[in-house]
Amino acid sequence: MLRIVAITGMPGAGKSTAAQALVRLGWTRVVMGDVIRAETKRRGLEPDAKNTGEVMKLLRKEKGESAVADLCLEAIGKTKADKVVIDGIRSMAEVEVFRKKATVLLVAVDASPERRFELLKERGRKDDPLTYEMFVERDRRELGVGIGKAIALAEETVSNQHATPDRLATEIVEVVGQWEKNVGA
Amino acid sequence: MLRIVAITGMPGAGKSTAAQALVRLGWTRVVMGDVIRAETKRRGLEPDAKNTGEVMKLLRKEKGESAVADLCLEAIGKTKADKVVIDGIRSMAEVEVFRKKATVLLVAVDASPERRFELLKERGRKDDPLTYEMFVERDRRELGVGIGKAIALAEETVSNQHATPDRLATEIVEVVGQWEKNVGA
Repeated sequence: MLRIVAITGMPGAGKSTAAQALVRLGWTRVVMGDVIRAETKRRGLEPDAKNTGEVMKLLRKEKGESAVADLCLEAIGKTKADKVVIDGIRSMAEVEVFRKKATVLLVAVDASPERRFELLKERGRKDDPLTYEMFVERDRRELGVGIGKAIALAEETVSNQHATPDRLATEIVEVVGQWEKNVGA
Repeated sequence: MLRIVAITGMPGAGKSTAAQALVRLGWTRVVMGDVIRAETKRRGLEPDAKNTGEVMKLLRKEKGESAVADLCLEAIGKTKADKVVIDGIRSMAEVEVFRKKATVLLVAVDASPERRFELLKERGRKDDPLTYEMFVERDRRELGVGIGKAIALAEETVSNQHATPDRLATEIVEVVGQWEKNVGA
């Protein structure tokens, strides 16, 4: 039976740090944002914040709210992995897609807007916001597709407000370990 | 200067347990739901889940998204307290109302739907859901007024997924103590 740890959280909250902690335990990581960035490039566009946002909206318009989740499921099928961590859940519609195919634990990684902006500046990925206005705009876009509901309905929440990367890793590993015991590892 | 700890979280997550921990330290608690329940009674209706939900919607329709927050500010003014914990933030519009009058820390208390349903059954307040269907419907109503965004944009998150009431109390007291140090207690 396929197990999925589905990680949600606002931009910069620490989703990837949490996901990578599970990768070190043998989980396979699938990044929802990578699917969107790949699709953005495929359409001949630079994968910056604006274009990836637009392509995400287009994908949802063309193929429905679960479009990105469907593409992820294809990617998972190819890996043949039975323990997968999905990095970057943006809506409950996506979670429902995964629940049809797997036992799913929905985990939210949280941090304040101020801290997330700092963490994003440290990261400096191509699609990361350069100014606070761009950051607020990106938050608004994510909230617009329903990420707030996914965070509110998460089964586990891990705070990255005061955590070091090591502490965040320890917490997610504990939470997932407990869940695996409960569902019968 | 007025300080407000604004507590948000889905129904049953443990907001009141967290708020009461601050009351024991001398904070004054104002419950947003009490304002709605009082208004429901004032309109001659039984304050059950359905009626309080309807009155909340009516209040927002009549006086805008911040209607309940405005009523709370009135209540705070009467108490003359300078450290207030607001129990039951439902939208960022409400947070903005408080930010105009106070230094605000927005805290989310989180727990899974399954755990929240159990906690609500234990509590058994008049407006608490009796069945899982009613529970899901109440979640939907809260998410409809934007509580997901408030949870996603919280400055601090405290998980009540595995905590005892004592542990939850300790965590919120720590978080608020740290914040008071930072803003200059």
